[in-house]
Amino acid sequence: METPFKATLLKMNAPIVDLVKKIKKLGKEDPRRIMHSFKVALAITLVSMVYYLRPLYKGMGDAGIWAILTVVVVFEYTAGATLCKGMNRGLATLLAGALGLGAEYFARLFGPKAESIVLGCLVFLLVAAATFSRFIPHIKKRYDYGVLIFILTFSLVAVSGYRVENIMELAHQRLSTIILGGATCIIISICVCPVWAGEDLHILIVSNMEKLASFLEGFGGEIFQLPLEEETADGSNEPDKSFLGAYKSVLNSKAMEESLANFAWWEPGHGKFRFSHPWKQYLKIGVLMRQCAYHIESLNGYLDSRFQASSEFRKSVQGPCTTMSSEAGKALKELALSIKTFSYPSNSAMINIQTCQKAVDEVNSTLQASMVGEWVILEIIPIITVISILNDIIKCVETIFEAIEELSEQAHFKKSEPEKPQILHGGAVAPLGDKEHDSGFVTIIIHKIVPQSVEIEAPRG
Amino acid sequence: METPFKATLLKMNAPIVDLVKKIKKLGKEDPRRIMHSFKVALAITLVSMVYYLRPLYKGMGDAGIWAILTVVVVFEYTAGATLCKGMNRGLATLLAGALGLGAEYFARLFGPKAESIVLGCLVFLLVAAATFSRFIPHIKKRYDYGVLIFILTFSLVAVSGYRVENIMELAHQRLSTIILGGATCIIISICVCPVWAGEDLHILIVSNMEKLASFLEGFGGEIFQLPLEEETADGSNEPDKSFLGAYKSVLNSKAMEESLANFAWWEPGHGKFRFSHPWKQYLKIGVLMRQCAYHIESLNGYLDSRFQASSEFRKSVQGPCTTMSSEAGKALKELALSIKTFSYPSNSAMINIQTCQKAVDEVNSTLQASMVGEWVILEIIPIITVISILNDIIKCVETIFEAIEELSEQAHFKKSEPEKPQILHGGAVAPLGDKEHDSGFVTIIIHKIVPQSVEIEAPRG
Repeated sequence: METPFKATLLKMNAPIVDLVKKIKKLGKEDPRRIMHSFKVALAITLVSMVYYLRPLYKGMGDAGIWAILTVVVVFEYTAGATLCKGMNRGLATLLAGALGLGAEYFARLFGPKAESIVLGCLVFLLVAAATFSRFIPHIKKRYDYGVLIFILTFSLVAVSGYRVENIMELAHQRLSTIILGGATCIIISICVCPVWAGEDLHILIVSNMEKLASFLEGFGGEIFQLPLEEETADGSNEPDKSFLGAYKSVLNSKAMEESLANFAWWEPGHGKFRFSHPWKQYLKIGVLMRQCAYHIESLNGYLDSRFQASSEFRKSVQGPCTTMSSEAGKALKELALSIKTFSYPSNSAMINIQTCQKAVDEVNSTLQASMVGEWVILEIIPIITVISILNDIIKCVETIFEAIEELSEQAHFKKSEPEKPQILHGGAVAPLGDKEHDSGFVTIIIHKIVPQSVEIEAPRG
Repeated sequence: METPFKATLLKMNAPIVDLVKKIKKLGKEDPRRIMHSFKVALAITLVSMVYYLRPLYKGMGDAGIWAILTVVVVFEYTAGATLCKGMNRGLATLLAGALGLGAEYFARLFGPKAESIVLGCLVFLLVAAATFSRFIPHIKKRYDYGVLIFILTFSLVAVSGYRVENIMELAHQRLSTIILGGATCIIISICVCPVWAGEDLHILIVSNMEKLASFLEGFGGEIFQLPLEEETADGSNEPDKSFLGAYKSVLNSKAMEESLANFAWWEPGHGKFRFSHPWKQYLKIGVLMRQCAYHIESLNGYLDSRFQASSEFRKSVQGPCTTMSSEAGKALKELALSIKTFSYPSNSAMINIQTCQKAVDEVNSTLQASMVGEWVILEIIPIITVISILNDIIKCVETIFEAIEELSEQAHFKKSEPEKPQILHGGAVAPLGDKEHDSGFVTIIIHKIVPQSVEIEAPRG
C-alpha cells in the first residue's frame, strides 16, 4: 500500500538511487578504480603525517604542503602515467630551481633598483620560450607536464627570491618535500595493486582484435540468413546481436592506444613485459586493426539489406563467402590468442588464412564461370560489393598476421612447437577484378621461420 | 671553399638549424601560438608584480606565489579551456576551503589527542570518494580539474589548519590570490587576441568537410584515368595528389572535436557565435563526416588498381560515375561554404545532390540493360564495388545535408534569398541492388522551408 507521501519520497529518491547504481556499475566494470581511490587517499594521508608528527614538521616547515600538492597532481591511474609525471616534476623542479637561482644572482648584479626590472624581463622571456616549446610535438608528447612545472618553479624561485632572504634553504626544503611527495606516489602506485599502462595496452589490443573477429565470424551467417519477419516481429526471442556492433569502439581507439603506449614507455619491466617491450609495434598493429575496422564499417551497411532478391546467385556464392568471413574471423581470434598468451602466431591461424584464400579462389571461379550472364547485374551488386570488401578485409588480416609475427620476434614470444619450414601459398591468389595489376596480388611467404634456428622454449608462468 | 673545420662546424649546426626550422614552421602554421606564448608570459609577469610592488606584497604576503601557480596551471591555449579551468579552480577552492574549515572545527571537538586521527580519517574518506568520482563520465568530461583542486584544497586546509593558528586569514589570503591569478588569466585570454575553441571547432568542421569534398571531386578523374606509365616514370612532372590523402585526418578527428566542443560550452558569445550556439550539432555533423570518411577510405583502396581491363564496361559507366563522385564533392563544398558563411545551405547544394541522384539512376539503367552479360563479371567487380560505395557516400552526403539544415535552424543562420517551396526529388531513387527493401530507398523531402515564413535577413558583419 503506497501512500502519496511514500510515493513522493520514492520519487525524490529516484535520482539518488540512479546515481548509486551508476557508481556501483563503475566499480564493477573495473574494481581497480576503487582500489585507485584508496591508493590516492592513502598517499595523501601518509604525506600529511608530515604535519601531524612534530619532529617531521620541524624539519620541513610549511613546505610540507608541497608534498601534498605533489601527491594530488602527480598520482595518476596507471603506474606509467604516475612515473611520467613524477619524473617530469622532479627533474623540471631541479632544473628550473637552479636556473631561477642563477637568474636571481644575475639580476642582483644590476643593483637594487634595476633588479626587479631585469628579473621581470628574464621571467617574461623564459616563460614565453617555454610555453612555445609545448607546441613542439615531441615535447608535447612526453615532457608537457615537465615544461609546465619548469615554468612554475622558475617563476616562483626567481620572483620569491626577490623577497625571501634565505632562498637556498627555501629551495632545499621545497625540493625535498617534492621528492618526498613524488616518491610516495611512485612507490604506492607501483607496489600496491599496480595498474600498468602497458598491460592495459596489451589487453586493449587483444580485446579489439577479438571484437573484429566476432563480427567477421558472425557476419556470414547474418547476411545470408533469410529474414524471418514473423519471428523478429515478436521481439522477445531476438538473439543477442551485440557482437555485430562491438567493433565500433575500434574505430576510435587511436587516442587511447597512443596515450597508453606513451605511458608504457615509462614503466619498468613487470610480469611478462620487459623494460624495452616493443610498444611501438602494438601501435602499428592498432593502425592495421583500425584499417580493418573501416572496411568492416562499410560491410556493416550491407547487413540491413539481406540478399533475398537474387537467391540463385546467392546460393552459388553463399558457401565460400561465409567461409571467407568466418575463417578471417577465426584467424583474427587465433592471432588475438597468440598475443594474449605471449606465443608465436599458431599454425592454425595460417591454416585459417589459407582456407580464406581457397574460398577466394572458389568465389573467383564461380564468378569466372558466370560470364554468360544469367543474372541481372543490378540485383547482384550488393553481393559483389560484399565479396569485394571481404577480400580487402582478408588482405588486412594478412598484414595483421605479419605485424604480429614481427611483434613475436621483437618481444621474444615463446614458440609453441617445433615447426617445419613452410611456404604458405607461395603462389599468388588471383585477385578479384584486376589481373594485370601487381598490387592486387595476395602473396604470403612465411620467410621468418627457419628450421635450424627453432628452439623449444619451456612454457613460462 | 669549404675547409674541413667549416664542414665540421656546419655538421654540428645541422640539428640546431633543423630545430630552428621546425620552430619557424610551427609558428608559421599558426601564428596564434606565438601570441599565446607572449600572453602567458605577460600574465605571469603581471601577477609577479605582486612581489615587486611593496604595498601589494604587504597585503598578500607569501600567498602571492599562489597567484603565480594559478596562472601557470590555468592558462590554456583556448579561451574556453582557460575559463573552464579558472571557474573550476575558483569554485572548487571555495567549496573545499569551506569544507576543510568545517572538518577542522569538527575534529577539534574530539580533543587535542584525537584531533589528528579524526582529521586523517576525514581526509582519507573524502579524498577516496572524490578520486572515485573522477571516473564518472559526466564529471570527468566537465569538472575533472575542479575535483582535483577540491582534493588539493581540502587536504591543504584540513591538514595545515592543524598547525597554523590564524587559519581564516590564511584561507582569505589564498582565495584572494587564486581569484587574482584566475581573473588575470581569464581577462588576458579573452581580451588579448583570444583563441576561441568554438571558432576552432567551426573551422575544423568546415575544413574537414572541404577535405572530403576535395577527394570526391578528384576521385572520378583519378580512377577513370588511363595510367600513362611513361609520364609517371619521370617523376618530376607528377601533379600534386595531396588532395587525395587529406581526408585521412578526418578519420581520427573525434577526440579533437569533442574537446573543442566541451571547451566551447564555457565560452561567452563572441562574433557570430552566441552563448548558446548549438555545439552539439557540430559533433553530430562530425560523426556523419567520419562515417563518410570511412567509406572514402574503402574507396581509396581502389585507386591503386585503375580500371583498364574492362574498358568497354568502363566507358559505359565512366560518365555517370564521375558525375556521382564530383557532384557529391561539390555538394559537400557548398555545404562547407554555407557553414563557413553562417547561411542556410544554398540551392546549388540541393541541385548537386539532385544531379548525383540522376547519375545514380543513369548508372542503374546502364546496369539494368546489361543483364545480357557481355562482360566477364570477375573483371567488372572493382567498378561495381566503386559504384556501390559511391552510392553509400551519396547517402552520407544527404544525411550531412539534413544535419546542416538542422544546424542552420538552431543557430539562426541567415537565409540567403527568398526561396520557393521545393520538394526535391519527392519520389524515390531506385537503390542499387535491393528493390524490395525500404531502407535502401533514398528520399529527400525538404520540409523545413515554408514559403510564408521566409524572411530576408540583411547580411550581417
